[in-house]
Amino acid sequence: MPAFVHRLRVRYSECDPQNHVFNANYLNFFDIALTELWRKAIGSYGAMTTAGVDMVVAEAIVRYRAPARFDDELDVALVVRRLGRTSMASAIEITRGDEQIVDGDMRHVFIDLGSGRPVPIPDRVREGLAAFATTN
Amino acid sequence: MPAFVHRLRVRYSECDPQNHVFNANYLNFFDIALTELWRKAIGSYGAMTTAGVDMVVAEAIVRYRAPARFDDELDVALVVRRLGRTSMASAIEITRGDEQIVDGDMRHVFIDLGSGRPVPIPDRVREGLAAFATTN
Amino acid sequence: MPAFVHRLRVRYSECDPQNHVFNANYLNFFDIALTELWRKAIGSYGAMTTAGVDMVVAEAIVRYRAPARFDDELDVALVVRRLGRTSMASAIEITRGDEQIVDGDMRHVFIDLGSGRPVPIPDRVREGLAAFATTN
Amino acid sequence: MPAFVHRLRVRYSECDPQNHVFNANYLNFFDIALTELWRKAIGSYGAMTTAGVDMVVAEAIVRYRAPARFDDELDVALVVRRLGRTSMASAIEITRGDEQIVDGDMRHVFIDLGSGRPVPIPDRVREGLAAFATTN
Repeated sequence: MPAFVHRLRVRYSECDPQNHVFNANYLNFFDIALTELWRKAIGSYGAMTTAGVDMVVAEAIVRYRAPARFDDELDVALVVRRLGRTSMASAIEITRGDEQIVDGDMRHVFIDLGSGRPVPIPDRVREGLAAFATTN
Repeated sequence: MPAFVHRLRVRYSECDPQNHVFNANYLNFFDIALTELWRKAIGSYGAMTTAGVDMVVAEAIVRYRAPARFDDELDVALVVRRLGRTSMASAIEITRGDEQIVDGDMRHVFIDLGSGRPVPIPDRVREGLAAFATTN
Repeated sequence: MPAFVHRLRVRYSECDPQNHVFNANYLNFFDIALTELWRKAIGSYGAMTTAGVDMVVAEAIVRYRAPARFDDELDVALVVRRLGRTSMASAIEITRGDEQIVDGDMRHVFIDLGSGRPVPIPDRVREGLAAFATTN
Repeated sequence: MPAFVHRLRVRYSECDPQNHVFNANYLNFFDIALTELWRKAIGSYGAMTTAGVDMVVAEAIVRYRAPARFDDELDVALVVRRLGRTSMASAIEITRGDEQIVDGDMRHVFIDLGSGRPVPIPDRVREGLAAFATTN
C-alpha cells in the first residue's frame, strides 16, 4: 500500500482533555492529506475549482485503533480504491512510526460548482489520480 | 425513532468556503448530542469521569445527504442501538426541518481512566441509557 | 453594562489537554454572540450579506482572567461601544455565574461583498444596533 | 526582527464562507509557532510540562491586515519581547510573501501544573529563549 503519504504534527488545539486527538479531527487529517495528494497528482486543488468542479464527501468511516497525542508526528497514507464515473473511493491509514492510530474509508462525489449536481470526473483529474490507485 | 433530540444552530466558524458545514464537524455534533443525552439520562458527563470511567470512540460512520449551512437550526437525534458489556452502539440522524442532512453510527467503548482498558458499563449508566434504547 | 447576553455551553472539543477552553476559541464565542445580537437587533445575519454588505474583523483583544472548562455554562455579554461611519467597536465580557472568565474588545469594518472595500454602515443596521450601544 | 519563523499552509477547514481564514484561527497559528519555537529553543514543549511547569495565555491582541485564504503558505514570525519573572511577552507577525496578513502580541504566564499558580520562568527556558529575544 501507501501510494501517498503526508506527514503532519498534532497541534495542541486538536487535543481534548484526555490529551487525545479529538475524534472528529481525524476527518480533517483525511482532508488535508487529500489536498496534498491533489497537489502532487494534479496540481493545486484551486485549479479544479476554478474550472467549475468541486468535490463533496458522500460517506466517511473512521476506525480508531490507538490515541494520538499532542506533538506526535503522524503519517497519513491515502490510496485511491476506485474511480467511478462521478465518484472516488479512497482508503486512509494514519500511523505513528509503525503503530496504527486510525484507518478509514471515504467516498467523494464530483460536482458542478454552479448547480451542485454530480459531474463526470475531469479527464485531467482521472489521469493524475491513476498513479495513486490500487492496481489489484 | 428519535429517542433523544438535541437542537443546535450552525456557527459561522463551522462552515467552509462552500458555505457547507465542514464534513468533520458533524462528528462534533454527534459528540455534543451524546453529552446532552448523558445529562438527561444519567446526569452530567463529569460525574462518570469523576468516578474513574470514560468513553472513547471506537468507530464512526457518517453519511452525508445534503449540506447544512451557516445559521441553520439542526436537530440531532440519537438512539442507543445496543449496550454490550463494555461498549455501546448508537445511531444518529441530523435533520433540518423534515430534510435529512446527515446520518451515522458510532461505537463507543467504556474505559478505566487510569489504565485506559475497557471496563463494564457502570450499572447507573446502563439503567439511565435504557430509556433511550431501541426496543426492537 | 450587559446590553446583550448570549448563553452557551462549553463543548468537549473546545477544551485542551489542560481541560481549559483553548485560548483561540474565545474569539469564536465573541463571533457567536455577535451573530445572536444581529438576530435580535436587526434580523438574521444572512439578510445583510444578501444585501451585499459584510463585516470583517480589524482588531481583537482578549484578556484571560480565569479558565472555563468542559460543560461550563458561560454568559457572553456584548455591548456596542461606538458606531463610526464604516466601523463598529464592541466590548465583550464572558462570565460563569459571577466569575469573570474573559473580556475583550473588537473592531469590525463593514465591507462591500463585491469589492471588499469599506462601506458606510447600512441605516437599518445602525438603527438596530443603537439599542445595544453604551449611552455614556 | 524575525528571530524565529515557522511556515504553515492554510487548511480548508480553517477558512470560512468568505474563503478567509476565520479570525479566531490566527490565535491557533500563534500557538503553533510558539510550540515550534520551544522545540528549537529548549526542546519539546512536553519536557517542560513533565517537569511540572506550563504556560497560560494572559492576553492576546490580533490586528488583521489582509485576509489569508485556503492553501496559502504563511510565515509566522515570533520574537520574544520581554521575559519577566513569571511572564513572557511576545510579538507575532504573519506574512504571505512580502504581504502582511496579521500581527499581534501575546503575554503568557508560567504556572505550576499542580496549583495553577504563577511560578518563575525555569532557568533552562529563560536561557533557551534568550536567543530569540529582541536586543533593543
